[in-house]
Amino acid sequence: MSAPIEFYFDFSSPYGYLGSEKIDALAAKHGRAVDWRPVLLGVVFRQTGAVPLTEVPIKGDYSRRDFPRSAKFHGVEGFRMPTKFPIPTQAPARIVLWTKAHAPARTAAVVHALYRAFFHEDVDISRPDLAAKAAAKAGVDEAAVRAAIDDPAVKDALKSENERAMAAGVFGSPFTIVDGEPFWGVDRFDQVDRWLATGGW
Amino acid sequence: MSAPIEFYFDFSSPYGYLGSEKIDALAAKHGRAVDWRPVLLGVVFRQTGAVPLTEVPIKGDYSRRDFPRSAKFHGVEGFRMPTKFPIPTQAPARIVLWTKAHAPARTAAVVHALYRAFFHEDVDISRPDLAAKAAAKAGVDEAAVRAAIDDPAVKDALKSENERAMAAGVFGSPFTIVDGEPFWGVDRFDQVDRWLATGGW
Repeated sequence: MSAPIEFYFDFSSPYGYLGSEKIDALAAKHGRAVDWRPVLLGVVFRQTGAVPLTEVPIKGDYSRRDFPRSAKFHGVEGFRMPTKFPIPTQAPARIVLWTKAHAPARTAAVVHALYRAFFHEDVDISRPDLAAKAAAKAGVDEAAVRAAIDDPAVKDALKSENERAMAAGVFGSPFTIVDGEPFWGVDRFDQVDRWLATGGW
Repeated sequence: MSAPIEFYFDFSSPYGYLGSEKIDALAAKHGRAVDWRPVLLGVVFRQTGAVPLTEVPIKGDYSRRDFPRSAKFHGVEGFRMPTKFPIPTQAPARIVLWTKAHAPARTAAVVHALYRAFFHEDVDISRPDLAAKAAAKAGVDEAAVRAAIDDPAVKDALKSENERAMAAGVFGSPFTIVDGEPFWGVDRFDQVDRWLATGGW
């Protein structure tokens, strides 16, 4: 079995959400697993000087039009912009790290449950209690993931994850790395698909 | 005949170049003409606070990897990063505006000749003499287009074009508008294609 596809994402990223809905099938098509890597774009952006997309003049207006259009284009049903956006994403990111360590088979389901809570149901997953409740729908223990959000060890793990992501060149969401080759954006999934099929060009 | 596709681009934009190589066929497929709209991203970026992509930490390194990879992915042969990059693009942009006014049938050929001079042959088309020489290969009069670069009326026309582009929401290159619907990037050409086929979704 080849190495897993590294899929970096921030829970407050609409394009990251779209990518999360497509990456399972893309990986499976090529016999790969997905390594789900939550990051905090707020921290990453300090390195690049970026600001949240929706807060950029002109470009922000475009992005609010492009999000639902791209969702429909990619066949992702149910997308709606959350009322509160962007949000800090430490809580859901820590839940994912805890899940990877303690219930790895549930990781994909937990990511999907959290993302859908935010981008379908307008649940503010920056709130620890709401994030834990959303994740529990994917079969992890609600009390355990709620506790993980405040666990210093999990907090440190997320900081380390962010450091590793930045060291690997991650600067946006979604960010996919296939055998060392980096692809930024769900709009590079067509290139990811061909790269997986051909090993590069 | 439906309205032309508005194709906004900056001559110093690698993704604009890739778009320029694809837009003719995409438009023709749907029975549309292309309205070539050169803009100056340097002016546009003042509104959004953007800086040239290659100058952004981390993201710049990625972009230098993504340019040739995307060129190959899109089947665009001969791409190479120019030695001097980015460049100011008043000279080639003014040549295009002159051509649209005085030899409109040559417009696409002039755009292609200028873009290829820069991104294939490493010609510094920010230099008026070199831009005029490159454009002349597409069948326009070299002395006439060289004079256009210094013509106050053409200079004013380019300023007006930039104002109109920004008023239309253009903030990057390439930027394609189809019947009022905006699409940023050559990586939205798949959406442009479907939009032209279906009239939206």
